[in-house]
Amino acid sequence: MSKFVLGLDFGTESGRALVVDVATGQIVGTAVHRYADGVIDEHLPGTSITLEPDTALQNPTDYIETLQRAVPAALKQGGVRADDVIGIGVDFTACTILPTRADGTPLCLLDEWKTHPHAWVKLWKHHAAQPEADRINALARERNEPWLALYGGIVSSEWYHSKTLQILNDAPEIYRAADKIVEGGDWIVWQMTDALKRNACAAGYKALWQKGLGYPSHDFLRALDPRLDRLNETKLAGEIVAPGTRVGWLTERAARWMNLRAGLAVAAATIDAHAAVPGTGVTEPGRMVLILGTSTCHMILDRAQHLVPGISGVVEDGILPGLFGYEAGQVGVGDIFEWFVEHNLAAWYKHEAETRGTSPYQLLEEEAAKLEPGESGLLALDWWNGCRTPLVDANLSGLIVGMTLGTRAPEIYRALIEATAFGTQIIIEAFEQNGVAVKELVACGGLAERNKLLLRIYADVTGREFIEAGSGYTSALGAAMLGAYAAGGAAGGYASVTEAARRMFPAQRVSHKPNAMSHATYQKLFAEYRRLHEYFGRGENDVMKRLRALRNEIAQKG
Amino acid sequence: MSKFVLGLDFGTESGRALVVDVATGQIVGTAVHRYADGVIDEHLPGTSITLEPDTALQNPTDYIETLQRAVPAALKQGGVRADDVIGIGVDFTACTILPTRADGTPLCLLDEWKTHPHAWVKLWKHHAAQPEADRINALARERNEPWLALYGGIVSSEWYHSKTLQILNDAPEIYRAADKIVEGGDWIVWQMTDALKRNACAAGYKALWQKGLGYPSHDFLRALDPRLDRLNETKLAGEIVAPGTRVGWLTERAARWMNLRAGLAVAAATIDAHAAVPGTGVTEPGRMVLILGTSTCHMILDRAQHLVPGISGVVEDGILPGLFGYEAGQVGVGDIFEWFVEHNLAAWYKHEAETRGTSPYQLLEEEAAKLEPGESGLLALDWWNGCRTPLVDANLSGLIVGMTLGTRAPEIYRALIEATAFGTQIIIEAFEQNGVAVKELVACGGLAERNKLLLRIYADVTGREFIEAGSGYTSALGAAMLGAYAAGGAAGGYASVTEAARRMFPAQRVSHKPNAMSHATYQKLFAEYRRLHEYFGRGENDVMKRLRALRNEIAQKG
Repeated sequence: MSKFVLGLDFGTESGRALVVDVATGQIVGTAVHRYADGVIDEHLPGTSITLEPDTALQNPTDYIETLQRAVPAALKQGGVRADDVIGIGVDFTACTILPTRADGTPLCLLDEWKTHPHAWVKLWKHHAAQPEADRINALARERNEPWLALYGGIVSSEWYHSKTLQILNDAPEIYRAADKIVEGGDWIVWQMTDALKRNACAAGYKALWQKGLGYPSHDFLRALDPRLDRLNETKLAGEIVAPGTRVGWLTERAARWMNLRAGLAVAAATIDAHAAVPGTGVTEPGRMVLILGTSTCHMILDRAQHLVPGISGVVEDGILPGLFGYEAGQVGVGDIFEWFVEHNLAAWYKHEAETRGTSPYQLLEEEAAKLEPGESGLLALDWWNGCRTPLVDANLSGLIVGMTLGTRAPEIYRALIEATAFGTQIIIEAFEQNGVAVKELVACGGLAERNKLLLRIYADVTGREFIEAGSGYTSALGAAMLGAYAAGGAAGGYASVTEAARRMFPAQRVSHKPNAMSHATYQKLFAEYRRLHEYFGRGENDVMKRLRALRNEIAQKG
Repeated sequence: MSKFVLGLDFGTESGRALVVDVATGQIVGTAVHRYADGVIDEHLPGTSITLEPDTALQNPTDYIETLQRAVPAALKQGGVRADDVIGIGVDFTACTILPTRADGTPLCLLDEWKTHPHAWVKLWKHHAAQPEADRINALARERNEPWLALYGGIVSSEWYHSKTLQILNDAPEIYRAADKIVEGGDWIVWQMTDALKRNACAAGYKALWQKGLGYPSHDFLRALDPRLDRLNETKLAGEIVAPGTRVGWLTERAARWMNLRAGLAVAAATIDAHAAVPGTGVTEPGRMVLILGTSTCHMILDRAQHLVPGISGVVEDGILPGLFGYEAGQVGVGDIFEWFVEHNLAAWYKHEAETRGTSPYQLLEEEAAKLEPGESGLLALDWWNGCRTPLVDANLSGLIVGMTLGTRAPEIYRALIEATAFGTQIIIEAFEQNGVAVKELVACGGLAERNKLLLRIYADVTGREFIEAGSGYTSALGAAMLGAYAAGGAAGGYASVTEAARRMFPAQRVSHKPNAMSHATYQKLFAEYRRLHEYFGRGENDVMKRLRALRNEIAQKG
């Protein structure tokens, strides 16, 4: 008799339930619940209370409704009985945090606080805490905090302490009323098990937690704001466990929500991007997972801690137990291609795509695929959104060089793809120069599924084999693997995440091997890219920053 | 009783006749004759003889038909009697040359030669003589020829010696059969007067003639090819006179073609672009004339000869008698804007332009005009077609820096205009740093008529008043002024071109004065432009050339 695990993937607009055969990894059922309130960025639901710019909130009721609706639908689709489900794993966006009472009740669901924006879930892309992030960075640099280098030297406005400090600054009464301020992933597991533990992934990558060091010190917190003094022991309290660690057992109440039986193993959550590492079958050092979307996350495992400039973070146990998980990133990838197609593509191409019954993206990909490396004569710096790894500089901007009157859209499109590939090669070199080996690339994410030319170009630029992950539900599959580990071998699951990933990852893999001639040409082009990268990115000519400063100055006057 | 002069403007696709009141400059009649054979670049007319790539020929019969059709039509439109016309002036494209018999008969009109491409008129944009130009440049550099620096250090494939050497190389029998190889402007005057003189403008700017030095020496010609030994004394022979000098009197035959009376004064021709200098009322140093079109010509007069890097040429008497005429240029201006609108403008803008009942150019101009200097955050190098003055480098290419995901088409369009303005400022500085004062700008050409934003930006960038020339027929009006000078004061004309220009130039002028605040901002941006200009243009980082070399290498393999 087959046994099954559930992978629950909580995204930005919806939550997904995946029912997976534990033995084979086969996906037998899946269902999506679209959040009723989605991303809340204009008004608080059911009120006329308007929100500040850069605010992005969510309603925790949407998470519970995902359990209530998506799980039973996925079980039904798979024809899976409740008795045959042995474990549940969760992945969640992060840093997505909410203030709660000691019993887990979100403040925003209480009449007393529900009209206050700061009582609601702050979604990962809530960007209103930039002043708080600036303060944290200045103080950390000033005090030379030991953890700063592990985060590439900069704390994001998206992260836990920035968002928490914003609550304290803007709504001290909410801060006081919150017994806990907790990641959404940990909160939903808490709701299913009545146990609050903190997953090392979100704690490590978003709340500056490091094994051995813990969270930022009392001294640091007091210097930031005396009222933060006891943060670690109160609102942040909770045992920290590696993703997949069994947090507890499904309660009667939560079992009823999902038409499951009580007593199932529930795994500690993980971040959605990080779930993609086991989700693509990667459990060992040397294989870099690229989650290709509007931006790109680069995840890689290693047995040791190394300092790599400009990475988003390195966290022991952060991705898989017993290994150091590294996260790096490019802040503009798919969104640069979208910018080009939406705002700079001539009418002819849209018309031609319609005539051929295809999309402008597909048409450009077909035409760009006919070009050889170097044939366009173009080179770009992929900094439309700034540069995360390795320069950590949001004030850099995009550049294209080599245009002639004969330059056409497919050439520019290809040059933009190539630029993002060069950006990835810079990141690979940053890792390798600092002791983290990168032997092979593994692709997942929407862009990897849609754009095969991109995979080929990345293989040719990096000179490395680029594997397409087989599943369309990489993160949810990774979450299901964590559920199988939480269930344990005795219950029909696995004794380690590694074993779960090896057994549950689909066998078929599509490989893009580098072409030696193309790689040789791209090495020449990459040398040019690197030179411009250094020239414009490291202070030799700060024209990008001066242009932006001038633009901002004019915008402020206007 | 009013007296009139004719200005005859021989362009690329058609010839225009302008009838102008000598006393007031008022245009009373005009007519265009579209050349029957136009630009011949595929087959010789009436044959199946196909032409080599980069060939561009014309049929001299089209020039005669312009006299026969456009002149009578223009006279009729103006209600002007033959007896009231006192002089004829001519401007012509250059270098546009044809081989003829000693009596002026074009070889291509003889049965013996008419099936041979090299017997026909080589139009200015015939670009097939690049190997010959390369050879001339190499030899001139090797021999350190005294004239080379006067042409910015480089001879164009469009010029007289390149084209003539191509005839000699590819068709020595035509070269031998040609008694003369003559500029189209000198040929049409020869046809009208039975006198062959060479205008100093075409001789100076296109055939390397310099007052005092003459044409390139026998030694140089022999080193180039022993068969060129007697070029100066045979095929190039003829007195050299300043444009506007009276060459002779209208013959009976030519008078019949045009319904005019014989004995009229006919002026030595000039090049169309150079005719625009008197045609915009400029007869003195300090006022730079910009002929704004797909590319831009910069013309300025000075009392002395200075060496200015990268100019197209400096020629004494070349534009006006008694002054040194300087020509500089930007090889990509309007064609960069056209490239952007035709190949890179999103469908939305074309659709919106249609909805508003305007053109995409007009829409972009309106939207771009709403932006402040610096507001786009963009900066471009205007080298889509390479750079003429001051770098003389066809292998440079276009660059844009500063793009973000928020960058939109009107911002790019404005940045491209600004880039060409910065390119003009670089040229102005090259002149001023080498002793040629530039106090004011005068605009003519199609782009000046269409794009008022451009004029405003150029005024703000250069910090100089920019005057719009009032006439839509600048070159033809300049030619008419030359005709008035050739007629002389006694016949009702003028004793100098300067006097003719002062009296015949329309009084109304539109002025674009620089805005002090915009100029201050543009000085900051220009400093950034200059820095990138130096970095990419003068060898510090030759990435543009390496990208192009790689592209060419791949194209050759393919």
